[in-house]
Amino acid sequence: MRLRHKPWAKDKLLQYPQYVVQNPETIKGKWNEEFQNDHPLHIEVGTGKGQFIYGMAKANPEINYIGIEMQDSVIVSALDKIIEDPLPNLKLLNIDGTNLQEYFAKDDVERVYLNFSDPWPKKRHEKRRLTYKTFLKLYEDILVDNGEIHFKTDNQGLFEYSLRSFSEYGLLLKFVSLDLHNSDFENNIMTEYEEKFSSRGQRIYRCEVQYQTK
Amino acid sequence: MRLRHKPWAKDKLLQYPQYVVQNPETIKGKWNEEFQNDHPLHIEVGTGKGQFIYGMAKANPEINYIGIEMQDSVIVSALDKIIEDPLPNLKLLNIDGTNLQEYFAKDDVERVYLNFSDPWPKKRHEKRRLTYKTFLKLYEDILVDNGEIHFKTDNQGLFEYSLRSFSEYGLLLKFVSLDLHNSDFENNIMTEYEEKFSSRGQRIYRCEVQYQTK
Repeated sequence: MRLRHKPWAKDKLLQYPQYVVQNPETIKGKWNEEFQNDHPLHIEVGTGKGQFIYGMAKANPEINYIGIEMQDSVIVSALDKIIEDPLPNLKLLNIDGTNLQEYFAKDDVERVYLNFSDPWPKKRHEKRRLTYKTFLKLYEDILVDNGEIHFKTDNQGLFEYSLRSFSEYGLLLKFVSLDLHNSDFENNIMTEYEEKFSSRGQRIYRCEVQYQTK
Repeated sequence: MRLRHKPWAKDKLLQYPQYVVQNPETIKGKWNEEFQNDHPLHIEVGTGKGQFIYGMAKANPEINYIGIEMQDSVIVSALDKIIEDPLPNLKLLNIDGTNLQEYFAKDDVERVYLNFSDPWPKKRHEKRRLTYKTFLKLYEDILVDNGEIHFKTDNQGLFEYSLRSFSEYGLLLKFVSLDLHNSDFENNIMTEYEEKFSSRGQRIYRCEVQYQTK
């Protein structure tokens, strides 16, 4: 994503600690206390401007959501959506997704969403793809047993790679669509990126995979 | 495939026992004797008019191939190709693929090819799809340990279904292409059907899966 630099973003994120969690490492293992309920927690890694996670949180009040985005200048747009219409079950984390285990304990999370992640098409950048095995281990370390990853992308190469990576890791493929917008999948919530590219006729790929009890 | 009935086909198949194996149940476990070498054996289930298996056999003389097709009126076209230009490493079987274990013993086969299998799109016909779990068990019963299935189709629904079915069965996804003809996959041998439909811009899906030692 091309970023417009917003030097004021960092300050704005700090002004809304009720929406953008500060010192999340102190809440590790206690997210239910933070949300003040015992609902399941779903997180999105790379939440961008937040249209997906906001839409999900609005549609599913019985689930807690956390949108994780490293880029100040991007996540601030997600914050704007919350400021305009707050949702009790949605919070944001302005952290680097490669360190998730610092902020979440085993069993904290029931589901991980990955949407239109950076494809890192060059082979030498494989380790940076969010579906590389070290990330699959990272998610496993914070998910419940039989936790799930739900993954969408328009990038054919990344989707092919990810299907292989999931299989090698031993994840069960529970759902796959090779053309989401021409399928009977219901209640799809689009990301900003998805809206733009699918309107140009780009295919959207989607799958759900589940960790297997060993 | 729409079939043109050829009442003479059955007789013709019987006239060439050196190409169309008669009484294959007597050769179960002894296919290397039939081919008079110890090369690996690859079979295609649903070989149609045989363009794929003929092309594979021609390109890979160090591998033995068997094309299996139930329909007399179709496999006779495969026979015609062999009559015109015989290949020592290619034979045909005019049998029903649902009874493979009657003709092949465990470890007889190293690889199963499935190309453009009937999609049987209705849910109530799921059991007829050649990637349904009972077929995956059937292939396992005749394959070597770590044997492989190589699968191609233009049918999106069948491919999605098959990826899930393979995963549920515990097969490892070693290769997947969601647009074979626009990929860097080399040495693709096309079936008659593939030639026709890909020339109309239809996407071809392809994957390779491997049985895992338990």
